Amino acid sequence: MSSFEEAETEETVTCLHMTFYHPCQDNKMMFRCLNFRKREQVRADEMAKFGRDSSICHYNLIDTRVSRIQFSLQFYRKLNSSELCFEIKNMSKKTKLIVDQTELGYLNKLDLPCKCIICFGDYQILAEIQEGESVDYFETHLHMAEVPILQDRCVPSLQPVQENGISSSFPSQDKSPIEIDENESC
Amino acid sequence: MSSFEEAETEETVTCLHMTFYHPCQDNKMMFRCLNFRKREQVRADEMAKFGRDSSICHYNLIDTRVSRIQFSLQFYRKLNSSELCFEIKNMSKKTKLIVDQTELGYLNKLDLPCKCIICFGDYQILAEIQEGESVDYFETHLHMAEVPILQDRCVPSLQPVQENGISSSFPSQDKSPIEIDENESC
Repeated sequence: MSSFEEAETEETVTCLHMTFYHPCQDNKMMFRCLNFRKREQVRADEMAKFGRDSSICHYNLIDTRVSRIQFSLQFYRKLNSSELCFEIKNMSKKTKLIVDQTELGYLNKLDLPCKCIICFGDYQILAEIQEGESVDYFETHLHMAEVPILQDRCVPSLQPVQENGISSSFPSQDKSPIEIDENESC
Repeated sequence: MSSFEEAETEETVTCLHMTFYHPCQDNKMMFRCLNFRKREQVRADEMAKFGRDSSICHYNLIDTRVSRIQFSLQFYRKLNSSELCFEIKNMSKKTKLIVDQTELGYLNKLDLPCKCIICFGDYQILAEIQEGESVDYFETHLHMAEVPILQDRCVPSLQPVQENGISSSFPSQDKSPIEIDENESC
């Protein structure tokens, strides 16, 4: 096989690394159905769904406060560009989804930055995109954080409170656990 | 029941009207599995998929030249707005999807204008959005055109040829049928 042919077959794959944290993860084990052992392939024409309903969501969170589908991710190519991106969409009627400083309501969607923090309720997810070339599929690689993601990353760069009062939406381990918008499952 | 309560329960539903045309529709009957009789409800958290594979696509086109999934539509709410929109995504690796004057490659996506013409190969679809309020679901109402959609609508308002040569991508009944990018199914 020539080196040219080799190069063609060695196409790199986009990988979305997602590091999960919840203050009660050790007791409630809501992440017990997530596969932290190895990368998983997702077809480019499928939506990656995260939520409570295991019949719909491949990424299943075992928590009655989580919505049937909490959020979804779709892989797409930017128009007039070869750039491959992810778009995140809030599928929960009850719970806001916060991506860095942007608050998404039900059915709102947003391009996922290369590195960002996704929050809903007490859940924190650090998402990091490792760029690749394949348009047929992407991979997800799940990790679990031992310590809160937000405290590590947000305290040194505290921003002024935004108009939408985003700062109050970030729960912390120091406060008593307050469930925001999650008292009813939907 | 007070008139206020009535108003609340009489929430209107967004309806996407889609009028299909193919020059060989009478002979090949590729639209025979589409439901032209009545409106259909689609949950807001589902993708509406159009294509050859009936196990994936609710809107099934009976034509070996059509891709497994040709295109998909998702319903969403614009950020910081109550506006409900549709986004169309080309899911075919072999066939370009043309929305008015914009050509979408594989995995490219675009907001659907209120009224537009969607083309791929010899297929022409007039899409018209009838606005509603419900965020739980939308409806589709399919129609079949007896005459070509493009000839009726595009000839009077012929635009200069765009840089991407879009004009040549619109097939017409007057020409001999040339399949563009559809000789291989994917």
